[in-house]
Amino acid sequence: MELAPYRARIEVKLKPGYIDPEGETARKALVELRYDVKRVGTAKVYELDFMASSIEDAKKQVEEMCRKLLSNPVKDDYVFEVKELK
Amino acid sequence: MELAPYRARIEVKLKPGYIDPEGETARKALVELRYDVKRVGTAKVYELDFMASSIEDAKKQVEEMCRKLLSNPVKDDYVFEVKELK
Repeated sequence: MELAPYRARIEVKLKPGYIDPEGETARKALVELRYDVKRVGTAKVYELDFMASSIEDAKKQVEEMCRKLLSNPVKDDYVFEVKELK
Repeated sequence: MELAPYRARIEVKLKPGYIDPEGETARKALVELRYDVKRVGTAKVYELDFMASSIEDAKKQVEEMCRKLLSNPVKDDYVFEVKELK
């Protein structure tokens, strides 16, 4: 099976209702700098270059990588897009 | 001056040429799980809800917040978009 390079962009963020301590820390620091900031939410982006046999295989791999390693299924939501690198 | 709520989405990532230790750690862990991953880059997203007097003022504030707190001007690039929250 021939492999080709693919690129995925994955965004992982806390599910609604979870407190975001990093965002809250940033908010407090911005308020101390006199900005009128009401809320800060954070998310993590991963850009992955990897090998797969087809776009379907690539999406399946990314789904697995998100579930196994890149997100915490209990508290995180993730979205991703995948494209072939020509 | 009347203030209105705005929302900014800011993405902060390392400038090209900087090594991304967090991405490299994720890459190694994915390779151990038998994924053929060549490169992982990471970025941080902030979603900010804040008050400003106009869209120009809102963009100016976000630019300042990025420079003063959310990014490290030496090693980070950032991009953002701002919209009024109706």
